[in-house]
Amino acid sequence: MSDLIQPKVLKGFRDFLPPAEIERALLMEKLVKVFRNYGFVPIDTPALEYSEILLRKSGGETEKQVFRFNDNGGRDVAMRFDLTVPLARFVAEHKNEIYFPFKRYHLGKVWRGEKPQAGRYREFLQCDFDTLGSDTAAVDFEILRIIKKALNELGVSNFKIHVSHRGIFNRFLQSLNLSEDSEEVLRIVDKISKVGENEVLRLLSELSSEEKAKKILDYISGVSKELKSEDFEKTLLHLETLAGGSSEDTKRMRDIYSLIKAVGIEDSVVFDPSITRGLDYYTGVVFETFLTDLPSIGSVCSGGRYDNLTGLYMKESITGVGASIGLDRLLAALEQLGHQKTKASFTDLLIFSLPEDDQALSYKIASIFESKNINAEVYPEPKKMNPQYTYAEKKDIRWGLFLGKDSCMEEFDKEPQSFKIKLKDMTNRTEDEMPLNEAVKKINTAKA
Amino acid sequence: MSDLIQPKVLKGFRDFLPPAEIERALLMEKLVKVFRNYGFVPIDTPALEYSEILLRKSGGETEKQVFRFNDNGGRDVAMRFDLTVPLARFVAEHKNEIYFPFKRYHLGKVWRGEKPQAGRYREFLQCDFDTLGSDTAAVDFEILRIIKKALNELGVSNFKIHVSHRGIFNRFLQSLNLSEDSEEVLRIVDKISKVGENEVLRLLSELSSEEKAKKILDYISGVSKELKSEDFEKTLLHLETLAGGSSEDTKRMRDIYSLIKAVGIEDSVVFDPSITRGLDYYTGVVFETFLTDLPSIGSVCSGGRYDNLTGLYMKESITGVGASIGLDRLLAALEQLGHQKTKASFTDLLIFSLPEDDQALSYKIASIFESKNINAEVYPEPKKMNPQYTYAEKKDIRWGLFLGKDSCMEEFDKEPQSFKIKLKDMTNRTEDEMPLNEAVKKINTAKA
Repeated sequence: MSDLIQPKVLKGFRDFLPPAEIERALLMEKLVKVFRNYGFVPIDTPALEYSEILLRKSGGETEKQVFRFNDNGGRDVAMRFDLTVPLARFVAEHKNEIYFPFKRYHLGKVWRGEKPQAGRYREFLQCDFDTLGSDTAAVDFEILRIIKKALNELGVSNFKIHVSHRGIFNRFLQSLNLSEDSEEVLRIVDKISKVGENEVLRLLSELSSEEKAKKILDYISGVSKELKSEDFEKTLLHLETLAGGSSEDTKRMRDIYSLIKAVGIEDSVVFDPSITRGLDYYTGVVFETFLTDLPSIGSVCSGGRYDNLTGLYMKESITGVGASIGLDRLLAALEQLGHQKTKASFTDLLIFSLPEDDQALSYKIASIFESKNINAEVYPEPKKMNPQYTYAEKKDIRWGLFLGKDSCMEEFDKEPQSFKIKLKDMTNRTEDEMPLNEAVKKINTAKA
Repeated sequence: MSDLIQPKVLKGFRDFLPPAEIERALLMEKLVKVFRNYGFVPIDTPALEYSEILLRKSGGETEKQVFRFNDNGGRDVAMRFDLTVPLARFVAEHKNEIYFPFKRYHLGKVWRGEKPQAGRYREFLQCDFDTLGSDTAAVDFEILRIIKKALNELGVSNFKIHVSHRGIFNRFLQSLNLSEDSEEVLRIVDKISKVGENEVLRLLSELSSEEKAKKILDYISGVSKELKSEDFEKTLLHLETLAGGSSEDTKRMRDIYSLIKAVGIEDSVVFDPSITRGLDYYTGVVFETFLTDLPSIGSVCSGGRYDNLTGLYMKESITGVGASIGLDRLLAALEQLGHQKTKASFTDLLIFSLPEDDQALSYKIASIFESKNINAEVYPEPKKMNPQYTYAEKKDIRWGLFLGKDSCMEEFDKEPQSFKIKLKDMTNRTEDEMPLNEAVKKINTAKA
């Protein structure tokens, strides 16, 4: 016995026990339904790819975090660390099999060897949705509409999608002669919520001059410290002026906003010029989503428009806009907000087993409930009642059923609907004798 | 441009394009529904585990196939190659957090570096369901009932679950003084469908004697070459005699069979003594499932009862019974049987975009359909009709909608329900002008 292996998962990895996995599954099902409703279709890609494909564009940080190795055939392979690089490879590889605009969603695990810390895991679920091949206000807007709808479906109504446009900001930086430093500026500005305005001012001054730093800070501050939905057009006008006048980028933002208003979701959107997204591949609209009651958790859904998704793999460039939902972060947030009540199973009814019971009859009765859309389980072993009650409790099963003492198969077979049973409501521990069809009605009424 | 990377997946790995991924997703959803209906709950475990945990019990063959490497922290890790070993580790690790009987299902990817060949992939979806902690006929039976129900839900009715009992066979081997060679006998018998009776006879004769080999062949042949459901009890009696009389194992099979008859699924089950399952950890009932119209594809769902799942990780042994569905094989089978028609999207209606259209109005109209449970997309760019028709075709969208030439927002806002549009049925290319509420009715009627 000394050679037992200690059962444990790797650091930064997690098991999901039934209540947590049910919660995650239900969340994913709701999201998937929204994607499908809006014309998005799923794809899947392998967990493992050539390292050359996954790592080419990313910087040193990613490279250090990735799970990379040589497979048995000597290939240099890596586990995917996001769903964007695989999408780029997928589109380049299948460009003749897909059609544009290509609206796809993809839910899947990704792996990063990050230093494990609160809320950071080495394996986590990513949920991406993107529209490729159409550079229009309509598809930009659709992504925002989906975020709104998805959060609503999850029971969250108190949130704001913070949007901005990278192109307007770039024009503004150009007017300051800072185009060449734009990547560095973006990186600094992106830190503002972490390090504060003063530090950003200091860093920007170091990079350029105090005057320019102040102008940048003025730009990202917009028209009001309190970001308000109704200031959208005012902020846009303000930035337009700072960037040197109207152009394609400001027209795009106006078009997006008119669609937002058309479907009546303007209250969920704010124009926030401090949103720049650190990553340099964004070229158009960019956005992050914050829960009003839990801003500290950070953005639960972020993304934007990019111009050249597939540049590493093919000559033609393909434009796109998309967003990524951090499912684990969102789950944690919903839990903190008390939003989702964990469900421990899908069972409605437990048919108890006493030593004198005929199990064949119990399963026949279970089939009756099954045919009425009631999920019924038979406790598989005749046992004392205590473990059976505990089982019902662990699985959050509301209803229990006892066969009558004189129950017999012949009686049931004669007239199943009026066969007498005892139904127990586990919430208040009351028991009532009634015919089977009445029990069906009672349970279905309570479910509805 | 010479440094473009060729976009390609690793050998033995696959992308899933939308139609294939939709088919797979819908299949999984149907299976999950059945598991949930019968009281099974989901878990999840990491893709990556300590090699020591995954590889301890398995033989050399698995070890050669597994994706194993040292992570950045120097840990010897491996990607899971099935869902059974992780289940064992999971149960040992969380034994105080879960309850018994523990009925769990788990759908997830597993990885094996097998030589790629037709129908064999290095990454594939496994679907397992097991009940742990109850050694009863009831839970054995439940697994068979789920197989029956699951295949029915997938539209397959023509199949047989071939069951046998490892314990009866072991008793029989004991009576031949072959207990010590039982593993080898199992391995040989398991090959019968591949190599034929004569070769099995030869191999068994080599192992023991011609006389014993013939007796084994007689045992696994049962009572009739044509396996018939109605021979179940006759076969059981026959084997009981060969194994030296009645015992717990034959009683178990009789109990399982009486439950099978109670719920009326006996036509889907045959007693097939040639089913032994090669793996030595099975101890009780064992089964494989064959599609009557496609036997060549092999078993689509196999499993059995095992006595000591967690032996490597803890002192207490935990009993279980479970099955595994080869999803990819099942998908291939359904395709060959012409069962599932691929669906290219979930969109019901495409709102076309002409240059003169007001897109804001199009999205308002889309919202009306959305509120009536109709999935509507707006084509995002005003274009000629041909690409829009092609798009509808690629996504299998049945209905198209044109805004009228004189459509205007004011008119719509006044009375949305009676707003006139032109609805096109893409199946027969007919167009009709009608008010919005009539279009809603027409589409919903066609969907129902």
